[in-house]
Amino acid sequence: MKKEWGFKENHELHAAAAYTIRNILQAIKGNVDEAKNLKELIHLGHGDPSAYPCFQTCTIVEDALVESIRSAKFNCYPPGVGIEPARRSIAEHLSKDLPYKLTPDDVFLTAGANHGIEVILTVLARPGANILFPRPNYPIYEARASFSTLEVRHYDLLPEKGWDVDLDGVKALANSNTVAIVLINPGNPCGNVFTFDHMKKVAETARELGIMVIADEVYAHQVFGEKPFIPMGVFGHIAPVVTIGSLSKRWIIPGWRFGWIAITDPLGILQQTGIAGSLTSCLTITADPPTVIQGAVSRIIENTPDSFFMNINKLLGEASDLLYKKLKEIPHVDCPHKPEGSMFAMVKLNLSDFDDIVDDTDFCMKLAKEESVIVFPGNAAGLKNWIRVSYSTEPKLLEDAIQRMKEFCYKHAKRSQ
Amino acid sequence: MKKEWGFKENHELHAAAAYTIRNILQAIKGNVDEAKNLKELIHLGHGDPSAYPCFQTCTIVEDALVESIRSAKFNCYPPGVGIEPARRSIAEHLSKDLPYKLTPDDVFLTAGANHGIEVILTVLARPGANILFPRPNYPIYEARASFSTLEVRHYDLLPEKGWDVDLDGVKALANSNTVAIVLINPGNPCGNVFTFDHMKKVAETARELGIMVIADEVYAHQVFGEKPFIPMGVFGHIAPVVTIGSLSKRWIIPGWRFGWIAITDPLGILQQTGIAGSLTSCLTITADPPTVIQGAVSRIIENTPDSFFMNINKLLGEASDLLYKKLKEIPHVDCPHKPEGSMFAMVKLNLSDFDDIVDDTDFCMKLAKEESVIVFPGNAAGLKNWIRVSYSTEPKLLEDAIQRMKEFCYKHAKRSQ
Repeated sequence: MKKEWGFKENHELHAAAAYTIRNILQAIKGNVDEAKNLKELIHLGHGDPSAYPCFQTCTIVEDALVESIRSAKFNCYPPGVGIEPARRSIAEHLSKDLPYKLTPDDVFLTAGANHGIEVILTVLARPGANILFPRPNYPIYEARASFSTLEVRHYDLLPEKGWDVDLDGVKALANSNTVAIVLINPGNPCGNVFTFDHMKKVAETARELGIMVIADEVYAHQVFGEKPFIPMGVFGHIAPVVTIGSLSKRWIIPGWRFGWIAITDPLGILQQTGIAGSLTSCLTITADPPTVIQGAVSRIIENTPDSFFMNINKLLGEASDLLYKKLKEIPHVDCPHKPEGSMFAMVKLNLSDFDDIVDDTDFCMKLAKEESVIVFPGNAAGLKNWIRVSYSTEPKLLEDAIQRMKEFCYKHAKRSQ
Repeated sequence: MKKEWGFKENHELHAAAAYTIRNILQAIKGNVDEAKNLKELIHLGHGDPSAYPCFQTCTIVEDALVESIRSAKFNCYPPGVGIEPARRSIAEHLSKDLPYKLTPDDVFLTAGANHGIEVILTVLARPGANILFPRPNYPIYEARASFSTLEVRHYDLLPEKGWDVDLDGVKALANSNTVAIVLINPGNPCGNVFTFDHMKKVAETARELGIMVIADEVYAHQVFGEKPFIPMGVFGHIAPVVTIGSLSKRWIIPGWRFGWIAITDPLGILQQTGIAGSLTSCLTITADPPTVIQGAVSRIIENTPDSFFMNINKLLGEASDLLYKKLKEIPHVDCPHKPEGSMFAMVKLNLSDFDDIVDDTDFCMKLAKEESVIVFPGNAAGLKNWIRVSYSTEPKLLEDAIQRMKEFCYKHAKRSQ
């Protein structure tokens, strides 16, 4: 009888998973001493406010899914790219902000935006190819790229310039094997919003380099500063754009795992080069969003009133104001750029101020243990000794969390301070 | 300005997608001349009866999802492996047929069974490794393996032995780099059901070879012949078993895309070798089934009455009887083994009887064009000049379809016949 088993642990999967927000937050949350600490856990680590009463989704969204179920029309397998009515509604929805009209053939349904990221990176991966990611970045990009043949090159987002793209850096990084640049707007983790002029320059740079723009617009329209949200597809005539979108954030239903990839490419370059066909092939052999959810999408998109979105943006804007103001009262941290969109702010730790905090991960682990407050270490997004703070929570909890962070900072500050 | 774009079509994805039932049926359906042909399209190509009134899912299933939505508790992100209550319900459900109890930690939720197949093949893939697939096989295995570093080796299912596994062939194929054997029971595409004794021999062979058994039990309990359904996990003490399961077929909701991987491994070999941890890591970086569906699973599993399943099995049994009887009236085809489970029968074409039918694909294309009847070419499942016929349809349609196939066969038979 054979003694050894022929199968083995997959260390590459462990390495990829180690990049994810999920795994990192799990480790930090595991450090909360629930038995000892009587303080309520406050989670400022992720962009999922669905548990808070003030961030509940719209009843119309729930009704749409109930109708889809009761119709009994959506219990069947979907096509790989998704059902036509849902793709049409998304195409029309996105076209409202574009200078040209998308068709259903420009839209590919995915099982959430993370799955959309998985799909486009799978399509682009080939030995020798490289891709440009922002630093800091949304970590699932790093996780998926590490588990592919794509080489990752990081360009900088510049905090001193409101997290704008270091365009010279982009040009210096790219070569003839570069396939795409990823741009996240509104920003995750930075909470910034790009201007029309800056985005146009990114598109022109992409054209010059012969690469596509992967525009992660998961936080589309969730802006509350001076700058409007402009979809990257507006510049699709300059360089082809693959947009990643989702119902998760704007409709506050991240757990429904429904997203899309949209091709905003009026010159038809992605069709001609076979990228559109490759997306279709990829979606043929990977997970689908449930048909029963796809059947609800048209009603969700067409019937959710503007007042719902305005209220969510108002809440996020107020929360970001509160966070920004309160952070100013803590001398040992610095938020150089007031958030303008998404649900996050990047906050710099003045590490030399602290007595016994080694780095951002140490800060997050100790803050969780001592104060039951969870924030995300910037290191895990590519920026060491920063933290990402989500303000998509109830104002009372946010205020309480920042107060605890303040006390924590004072407690750990050097005596001379 | 650069003329060439740096990204390219992904031919490996096209090659993988070409294996899928989706793409093959799409091509065959495209051959139906809808303008010219006045006959109603009858689809015997896939295992999705959800559109037929007699195969509607249970109201309790719909109610469970409506309750999950209305509770507003399941709009949040799920853990990568899925929520605990759903995993617990599935563990208890599966344990009823096992000599030992599964725990929630033995269950990993997937976005349908195809996604489960993707996940386990991703976990096992490494350069040099090989995996044993049945011939004929369910095509998504071939698609996913082709898009990985796994080398595929095919063992035969023997039609003359009721589609039993060619165990000598399995032993001859395996070597020290073999990681697993896939066994589909009840059979897709063959409609067979394995006996206790035969499955025990498969487990013993797996142990001898030092490989795990991947038991695809998507059609679990959907049996209507003499043989009971026995889960492979019963033999988990002989060799570790990774079971692929789903709500799709038994509850007739394939479009809900909800499945699971269960580890049935009382000796803990999959834990010790890190396979369980690798599954967790893989699920951390890939698609999730929606939390809102996960939230309905306990109610679905616990509350669906046996009468619902008995009725579905009765319908499938009657349909398989009808198909088997009617096929006997066609001299140019042969169904050597009466279906005992799942929704399919494998039917051999006596090609030498035909005048102008080149092979099984040609048969399927012409049958679609001339008679608006869709069946699946065996070649695409690994068995040339057979066809896979689904009988999960309404009896009247099934009878009509077989009558059309009969006329088609007579029309294309050699004159001398």
